[in-house]
Amino acid sequence: MSGSAARTQAVFSTLDVPQGPVPKSKYSFAPRALADLLDHDNQDYRRHVQEIFGTVPLFSHALTAQTVADKGLHGHRDLTLERVRYGAQNQLISVRDYLGNPLKFQAYLETACLLEGSFGVKSGVHFTLCGGAIMSLGTPVQHDEWVPRMDKLELAGCFAMTELSHGSNVLGIETTATFDNSTNEFVINTPHEAAQKIWIGGGALHAQITALFAQLIVNGTNHGVHCFVVPLRDAHYNLLPGVKAADNGLKLGLNGVDNGRLWFDKVRIPLKNLLARYSQVEPTTGKYVSSIENPGVRFATMLGALIGGRVLITASAAMLSQFALLIATRYGFSRTQFPDETGSEVSIMSYLSHQRRLFPSIATAVCTRLAAGLLKDVFVSRSPASLKQVHVLAAGLKAYATWNKQQFVRECREACGGQGLAFHNQIGAIMIDSEVDTTFEGDNSVLYQQVAKALLGEFRKAAKAGKATLPTAPSKAATPEELTALPHLLALYAYRTKDLLMTLVAELQASLKSGVAHSFSDAWDRNCDLALQLANAHVEHTILAHAIHTLQDEKLDKTLPPVLTILARLFALSRIEKDLGYFI
Amino acid sequence: MSGSAARTQAVFSTLDVPQGPVPKSKYSFAPRALADLLDHDNQDYRRHVQEIFGTVPLFSHALTAQTVADKGLHGHRDLTLERVRYGAQNQLISVRDYLGNPLKFQAYLETACLLEGSFGVKSGVHFTLCGGAIMSLGTPVQHDEWVPRMDKLELAGCFAMTELSHGSNVLGIETTATFDNSTNEFVINTPHEAAQKIWIGGGALHAQITALFAQLIVNGTNHGVHCFVVPLRDAHYNLLPGVKAADNGLKLGLNGVDNGRLWFDKVRIPLKNLLARYSQVEPTTGKYVSSIENPGVRFATMLGALIGGRVLITASAAMLSQFALLIATRYGFSRTQFPDETGSEVSIMSYLSHQRRLFPSIATAVCTRLAAGLLKDVFVSRSPASLKQVHVLAAGLKAYATWNKQQFVRECREACGGQGLAFHNQIGAIMIDSEVDTTFEGDNSVLYQQVAKALLGEFRKAAKAGKATLPTAPSKAATPEELTALPHLLALYAYRTKDLLMTLVAELQASLKSGVAHSFSDAWDRNCDLALQLANAHVEHTILAHAIHTLQDEKLDKTLPPVLTILARLFALSRIEKDLGYFI
Ligand SMILES: Cc1cc2nc3c(=O)[nH]c(=O)nc-3n(C[C@H](O)[C@H](O)[C@H](O)COP(=O)(O)OP(=O)(O)OC[C@H]3O[C@@H](n4cnc5c(N)ncnc54)[C@H](O)[C@@H]3O)c2cc1C
Ligand SMILES: Cc1cc2nc3c(=O)[nH]c(=O)nc-3n(C[C@H](O)[C@H](O)[C@H](O)COP(=O)(O)OP(=O)(O)OC[C@H]3O[C@@H](n4cnc5c(N)ncnc54)[C@H](O)[C@@H]3O)c2cc1C
Repeated sequence: MSGSAARTQAVFSTLDVPQGPVPKSKYSFAPRALADLLDHDNQDYRRHVQEIFGTVPLFSHALTAQTVADKGLHGHRDLTLERVRYGAQNQLISVRDYLGNPLKFQAYLETACLLEGSFGVKSGVHFTLCGGAIMSLGTPVQHDEWVPRMDKLELAGCFAMTELSHGSNVLGIETTATFDNSTNEFVINTPHEAAQKIWIGGGALHAQITALFAQLIVNGTNHGVHCFVVPLRDAHYNLLPGVKAADNGLKLGLNGVDNGRLWFDKVRIPLKNLLARYSQVEPTTGKYVSSIENPGVRFATMLGALIGGRVLITASAAMLSQFALLIATRYGFSRTQFPDETGSEVSIMSYLSHQRRLFPSIATAVCTRLAAGLLKDVFVSRSPASLKQVHVLAAGLKAYATWNKQQFVRECREACGGQGLAFHNQIGAIMIDSEVDTTFEGDNSVLYQQVAKALLGEFRKAAKAGKATLPTAPSKAATPEELTALPHLLALYAYRTKDLLMTLVAELQASLKSGVAHSFSDAWDRNCDLALQLANAHVEHTILAHAIHTLQDEKLDKTLPPVLTILARLFALSRIEKDLGYFI
Repeated sequence: MSGSAARTQAVFSTLDVPQGPVPKSKYSFAPRALADLLDHDNQDYRRHVQEIFGTVPLFSHALTAQTVADKGLHGHRDLTLERVRYGAQNQLISVRDYLGNPLKFQAYLETACLLEGSFGVKSGVHFTLCGGAIMSLGTPVQHDEWVPRMDKLELAGCFAMTELSHGSNVLGIETTATFDNSTNEFVINTPHEAAQKIWIGGGALHAQITALFAQLIVNGTNHGVHCFVVPLRDAHYNLLPGVKAADNGLKLGLNGVDNGRLWFDKVRIPLKNLLARYSQVEPTTGKYVSSIENPGVRFATMLGALIGGRVLITASAAMLSQFALLIATRYGFSRTQFPDETGSEVSIMSYLSHQRRLFPSIATAVCTRLAAGLLKDVFVSRSPASLKQVHVLAAGLKAYATWNKQQFVRECREACGGQGLAFHNQIGAIMIDSEVDTTFEGDNSVLYQQVAKALLGEFRKAAKAGKATLPTAPSKAATPEELTALPHLLALYAYRTKDLLMTLVAELQASLKSGVAHSFSDAWDRNCDLALQLANAHVEHTILAHAIHTLQDEKLDKTLPPVLTILARLFALSRIEKDLGYFI
C-alpha cells in the first residue's frame, strides 16, 4: 500500500478565503448587548471559559483534526477524555452546580458543545446525565458519596437507560434490580439479549459508575423504573466482575465518545446505591416507601428531574445554528465567484437565493435562542406544580431547535461550496456530531407527540369545565404593514395552533366513530402526523410570543428593539411561507 | 491516556434488530422485473460486480469500519486505493468503455458508489473524470498514450479544474498554459495563490497524471480554457519537479479520497499533451486551429463531453436514496417500541408519521431512478445537436436527485433511531460521503439556474417566432379520482412550469423597468430564487412525464404497471403537497 501518514501535510489551520467584514447594517445596534441577551446569563464566566478553550492547546481544533486523521477513533476518544478531565480538574464545573448553580452549569456545557461535539457530549454525559441524576434523584448523603470524586473525574460517570429493544419507551425497559432481603443488596440483571443497555456514552471504555435505570423488584412486586448507581470499572478502567461491555464502534459523528453496550450478570450493589430522594426500600423488610404515591406521577417526577439534558441540547442547537450561520454569512459576503456585466465579480450574497438560504434561518435561530432562555428560566425555577409546563416547553423546543439546526447547518455547508466540506470550516463537524440531537434525550417525533397530547389534555379539561374556546380567525389585515406587523402575525400563529387542535380533536373522533380506528391509541397513531403539525404550530407560537415579549422589555438596551423586531418578523413570515399551504 | 485500540471490541458485523420480512403488498408484482427496470441496463454484469464486492474480503464494510477506526484517514485512503486497483487490475472496467460501452462503464461505477462513497468517488475521479476527459477530448493517438496504463492503475489520474477562487465559474480559472514556440511545449503555471488547484481528488497523494484545465495562451492570445494532460508524480508517488501539492486534510465524509491542492511552477509539457480532439496548436508557428469556431460553443462542447460524471451522480443518488429507504423501511416494519392498548408492541411503521416519512420518498426515488435511465439514453445517443438538451436534463436531474437524497437519507437516519448512527447501519456513511454531491460536478443552485436560463431562452426563441403559448390551467377535476389520476397530475405539472416561466419573464422585465435592477444579470440575481423554483417544476414535470411514459410501455412486464402507477401518483401528489402554497 502507498500513502503514509508522514507524507500527508494537511492544511488545517487557516480558512482559505479572507473573512472580510460583513457590510454595516442600516440598523445599528450594540452587538455586545445582543450577544449578552442571547447568552442569557453568566456572560463573564462564558467568556472566561471561551478564553481557556481558545488558548489552551489541548482544545485546539487543529489538534482534533490531526488526531482524528492520524489516530482514528481511538485517538479521538483519548483526546476527548483528556478534555473532559481538564475541565473537571481545573474546576471549571462541578456536579453540585446542577442544583446549586444550574445556569453556570449549563453555560459551561454549552460552551463545550460549541467547541466540539464529542467533548460537549462526553462532558454532558458525565456532568448532566450521570451527575444530574445523582443530584436530583439522590439524597445529600448520596451526593457526598459520589460527587467529590466525580468532580475530579476520578470517577467517570455514564447514564444507562436505553436498551436494545427500548429507547423511546423508557417504561418498557427490562433490566431488573431485585432486592435481596437477606443481604440488603440489589441484584442487577440483564434478563436477555434484547435488554442489554446500548449506546451508553462512556459505556465502552471510560465509565467507572453508571446511573442505571432498571425495574425495581421487591418481594416479588415490581415498583417500576428506578435509578441506581452501579460501579462498572476500577480506577484503571478494568471491568468489574459480572459486568460485560462491548463497543458500539464507529458512528456517524461523535466518534470521540465511546458509546457502548452493557450486560449485567447478577451484579450486587448495596442498598444505599438506590437513588433515594423520592423512593426508598427499607432494609430487611424490603418495604417500599415513596414520597410520591402515584406511580405515574413518580415516574414523571423522576424523568422531569432529568430535563437538564434537554435544556442543554436546546440551547446548544440554537447556538450551533447561529455559529454555522455566522461562518456561512461571513463567507457569503466575502466570497466572489461570477462577474457582473462590468466584469468585476460580485459576492455570492448578491444572489437572492443565497440570502433566502441564510437570512430567515438567522432570524429563526435568534428567536429560538431567546426561547431557550425562557426554558432555562422556567427550568431553574421549577416546582412540582410547574413540572408539566417545563416538560412541554422542553420537549417542544428541543425537537424544534434540533430539527431546524440539522437543516440550517446542512444549508450552511452547501452555502460554503467546497469549503463547507473542510474540517477546518467547522460546519461539517457540527453537522455530523450533533445529528444525534434529534434522537437522543427523547426522539423528536415522540417529544412532539407528548406536546400535542398535553395540548389535547388541556383542551379536554377546559371543555369539561365548559371553558373551551373556539379559534377565531384574526381580522383581515387591511394593509401590507398591518399584515406583517407582529401583533397580527402573533394572532395568526395563535389561530393556527387552536385551529389545528380542533382539527385533531375532530379527526380523532371521526377515526373512532367511523370504526377505522379500534381504540384511542390506534386513532392517535393514524393521526399522529397531524399531532406533529400541531406541536410545531404550538412551539412556533411560543417562540414568537416570547420574542415579542423580550423586545418589549423596558430594561432592554435601547438599540435592540428595532433589530429584534426585524428578526421576529422575518422569523414569523418565513415560517408562514414554509407552511403556506395551511395559511392560504 | 487511557483506552487502547486493543481493548475496543467493536461490534460491526450485525444489524441489531432482526430484519423481518416486509408485509406482502396487495399489489403483487415481479420484484426482479422492477429491479431490472430500475437498473436500466447491464443487469447481469451488475450482479457479477455485486457478487465480487460482496465476497472479496477487500470490499467488506466491516473492513472499512475497522480501518477507519484503527488507522484514521490514512488507512482509509490506502484501503480505497487498493479497492480501485482491484477493479482495474481485474479488468472490471476500462477507460475505453467511457465511449465504447458507456452503459457498462456507468454500471460499474454506480455499483462502486453503492458499495462505499470514497471507493465510488476515487474510481469516478480516475475513470470518469480523468479517463473520460482523455477519451472525449483526446485523439485516438492520445488514448493509446495514456489509457493502457490507466486501465491497470499504473498511471492514476486526477482532474484539476477547480481553483481556490473559482469553482462554479470555470471560465474564470487563472492557471495558464502558455505555448513556447521555441521548444513546442506548454508552460503550465499557477500565477498566484488564489489560482491554486484545490479539492482535487487524488491530488494530495496518489495521482500520477492530471487532466488539467487552464487558459491556453499562444503568441500572446488567450484562446480560453483547454484541457491538458500533466504528469504529477512518478511510479513511486513522488512529486515531479515544479509541482507542489498539499493535502486538503480531514473532511466531512469521503475521507478515503485524498483531495489536495496543486501548484505549478512553470512546468513544461510537450505539445502532444494538449487534448486535441477539438483544438490543436501547430508546432513552431503556434497557429491555433479548432473544429469549432465559436469559443462559447467550443467551451460548451468541451464541458458537454464531461457530462458522464453528472450522469453517474444522478443515477447513484437515486440508488443511494433507494438503498437508505430500503434499510429504514425494513427496520420500520420489524422494529417495535410502544405497546398498544392490548399490551403488545406495534411496529413503528404503524405510525402515520413514520409512513409519511418514508413512502413518498420511496416513490420519488423510484421515479427519479427511471428518469436517470432516460438521462443515460440521451447521454449515450448524444450528438452535437442534442448537446443542449442533454446538458439541461443532466443539470436538472443531478440537482434534483442529490438534493432529495440528502433529505431522504437524513430522514432515514432518524427513522432508524439510534441505530441510524451506527456505521454498520450504512445510512450514516451514505449521508456524509455523498454530501458533496450537491456541490461538485456543478453546484446545484448554479445548475438549476442553467436549466431556468435554457427554458427562458427557448421561450424567447418561440416568442420571436410568434410561437409562444400561454399556460392554460387544466380543467378542474370533477371527482377525487380524476384529481389524482396521472393525466390530470401531469397537466398540473405542465401548467406550473409554464406559469412559473411566465412569472419569471414578467418579474425580470419589472425589475428592469422599475430601475430596481441596473442590468439583466442584476435582475436575474435578484430573481434567481424564482429561477430555482422554475427549474424544480420543470424537472418534476420531466420525471413525472417519463414515469408515465415508462409505465405505458407495451414491453413492460405485465405485473409492473399497477405498482408503477401507484408510485407515480404518490410521487406527484406528495410533491404537490410540498409546494401546496403554489398549487392552492
Ligand atoms: C450517539 C448516541 C448516544 C447515546 N447516548 C445514550 C446514553 O448515554 N444513555 C442512554 O441511555 N441512551 C443513549 N442513547 C440512546 C438514545 O437515547 C436512543 O437511541 C433514543 O432514545 C431513541 O431510541 P431508539 O434508538 O430505540 O429509537 P426508537 O424509539 O426505536 O425510534 C425509531 C424510530 O421510530 C419512531 N418512533 C418511535 N416511537 C414512535 C411513536 N410513538 N410515534 C411516531 N414515531 C415513533 C422514531 O421517531 C424513530 O424514528 C444514545 C444514542 C446515540 C445514537
Ligand atoms: C470532496 C470534494 C471533491 C472535489 N473533487 C474535485 C475534483 O476532483 N476536481 C475538481 O476540479 N474539483 C473538485 N471539487 C471542487 C468542486 O467541484 C467545487 O467545490 C464546486 O465546483 C463548487 O465550487 P466552489 O467550492 O468554488 O463553490 P462556489 O462556486 O464559490 O459556491 C459557493 C456558494 O455560492 C453559491 N453560488 C455560487 N454562484 C452562484 C450563483 N450564480 N447563483 C446562486 N448561488 C451561487 C453556491 O450555490 C454555493 O452555495 C471537489 C470538491 C469537494 C468538496
